[in-house]
Amino acid sequence: MVVIPADELKELGVNIFMAQGASEERARFLVGTLVEANLTGHDSHGVHFYVKYSERIEEGYIKVDEEPVIIKESPSSALIDGGWTFGQVTAMKVAETAVEKAKEHMVAGVGAFNCNHIGRIGYYTEWAAKHDIIATFYVNVGNKIVSAYNGLGRAFGTNPFSVSAPTGSETPFLVDYATSVVAAGKITVARAKKSKIPGHWTRDKYGRVTDDPNAMSEGGWLLPFGDYKGQGLQMASELLGAVLTGSRTGLSGITVPPSPNGIFMLAVNPEGFVGLDEFKRSTTELLSKVKSLPAVAGERVMVPGEPEKESKERRLKEGIAVPESTWGEIKALCSRLGVEVK
Amino acid sequence: MVVIPADELKELGVNIFMAQGASEERARFLVGTLVEANLTGHDSHGVHFYVKYSERIEEGYIKVDEEPVIIKESPSSALIDGGWTFGQVTAMKVAETAVEKAKEHMVAGVGAFNCNHIGRIGYYTEWAAKHDIIATFYVNVGNKIVSAYNGLGRAFGTNPFSVSAPTGSETPFLVDYATSVVAAGKITVARAKKSKIPGHWTRDKYGRVTDDPNAMSEGGWLLPFGDYKGQGLQMASELLGAVLTGSRTGLSGITVPPSPNGIFMLAVNPEGFVGLDEFKRSTTELLSKVKSLPAVAGERVMVPGEPEKESKERRLKEGIAVPESTWGEIKALCSRLGVEVK
Repeated sequence: MVVIPADELKELGVNIFMAQGASEERARFLVGTLVEANLTGHDSHGVHFYVKYSERIEEGYIKVDEEPVIIKESPSSALIDGGWTFGQVTAMKVAETAVEKAKEHMVAGVGAFNCNHIGRIGYYTEWAAKHDIIATFYVNVGNKIVSAYNGLGRAFGTNPFSVSAPTGSETPFLVDYATSVVAAGKITVARAKKSKIPGHWTRDKYGRVTDDPNAMSEGGWLLPFGDYKGQGLQMASELLGAVLTGSRTGLSGITVPPSPNGIFMLAVNPEGFVGLDEFKRSTTELLSKVKSLPAVAGERVMVPGEPEKESKERRLKEGIAVPESTWGEIKALCSRLGVEVK
Repeated sequence: MVVIPADELKELGVNIFMAQGASEERARFLVGTLVEANLTGHDSHGVHFYVKYSERIEEGYIKVDEEPVIIKESPSSALIDGGWTFGQVTAMKVAETAVEKAKEHMVAGVGAFNCNHIGRIGYYTEWAAKHDIIATFYVNVGNKIVSAYNGLGRAFGTNPFSVSAPTGSETPFLVDYATSVVAAGKITVARAKKSKIPGHWTRDKYGRVTDDPNAMSEGGWLLPFGDYKGQGLQMASELLGAVLTGSRTGLSGITVPPSPNGIFMLAVNPEGFVGLDEFKRSTTELLSKVKSLPAVAGERVMVPGEPEKESKERRLKEGIAVPESTWGEIKALCSRLGVEVK
């Protein structure tokens, strides 16, 4: 591992994407979302995408200076054509539009298609919550890697789901997870460490229980979390993220471009209901009670979003640990682009 | 078990609630939701509530002829005071208001407080879907019976979650479940049958793993489904169902009235996005692909809502099996009310 301060990783990333034609503003935003993923502990969605996104720019899948455009709109809704720019730019446009409409009309729904990989989806719901809006976010991933419950073979992407709410206190409320038992990144980590994985994470290509992290890349698949209940949420993300927005489903049979997301945010203004001040007061009280619940031995009860908050505080101080292999790839990329590495 | 045709159970229920002051229209609607729960296989939410609701009417907790009233409104939102009438009446008002607003404004959110037990929540989202509107429904139950993830002791209700979408075909899409591993009703069934339960359903009052269904009523608790991921949804239902609407949370410390629900529906009109026809066409195509996925031995891949559809077809033909004890209680109630039982 190479430990690098967050700010240094950011400056490097900004130079990488500016060297490929992105404006400084866009590069800074994009890189901010990736470094934030590392800071919050979600390395699977972090700076290793400097390399992957650069490949996709080169292959023509990511159009660096395209602008997402609203193609259909009402006071409470919008549908956005992402124009295949960075998915993060499109997702931010979705969040901004949803929050703006919810501020004025109390409830809004905004979706997007032609959208590349948007990264860690909690980034956008948390942003909404910081602007005093409750946001739920249904995202499909147009590459199948997860089975249906009781199914053999890949059927869906990891179809993440997120909810965030304003709390008015230091305690966040941020639900943000893949609807598979684990994100694909955890398998990658286990493979790199040559460690075994729990039997309820994946199946091998024959549908057999396995503890081998290599089984995934050899035709295996991830399982949905929580049996049929997780499958319900997995399919809700498929219908709302992909079908409702006209994006690619996991079972479409289409594989190009390589990593599309179909995204749909529902935004709710507490002012339309109990009122913002009361919502925050009552949420703070509830979360405080939850945090002080007695816990099973060796554990504590956490509010969704707390692990991310704690990781960010730690990593802002200590820096971000990047695997040697990833760091090597980033340096090679910089060398090709003529970007200086300190 | 006593097997009774659905229509007979309905007529009996209508007479029971009319004898307690409900209008025929209201009694017929209420009883329809309860019998529908039995028909769809959710006996935990069925006709045994004839007795429970009657007790609550007598105790003054359910006000039979109160009307739910919108107390705050915008074109895309509404907050409803349920006035402590039957929760079903309030939930239906929420669904009707949400669908009406989504028809006109594409997206809407409607919540309610002062709301009694609303029964099986899929009833309302499925109703919305039949009216061409996608509905997500977050419901909290103001009586704690489920722990937080890693927590000891009861913290939340079974906080159900539901999503339904129009499919334009015979295949439904209806997600509808408690955010606990199982609904409390399954423990009751095991207790009645004197059978053991799986160790991941509950804990006893000391937090120990148990296979004894009696441990629940002796101070034990249910566990949230899917570990921390299920807890995220459990708490989303608490924040959106209860906090946002000003309803009672599980940890409020308040225990009267006995069974309140805080409810919040988000309704989405596909016309604001990809269009209704295209949404239905594409959903039908997706669900058909999911249903034909190869399955693990002895199982099949089902779309959420299919088990309910199959149960309903079967029970409409074969009748509804009511446990002797429940049937005895219903007959005793009829005798007190002077309602004739065939």
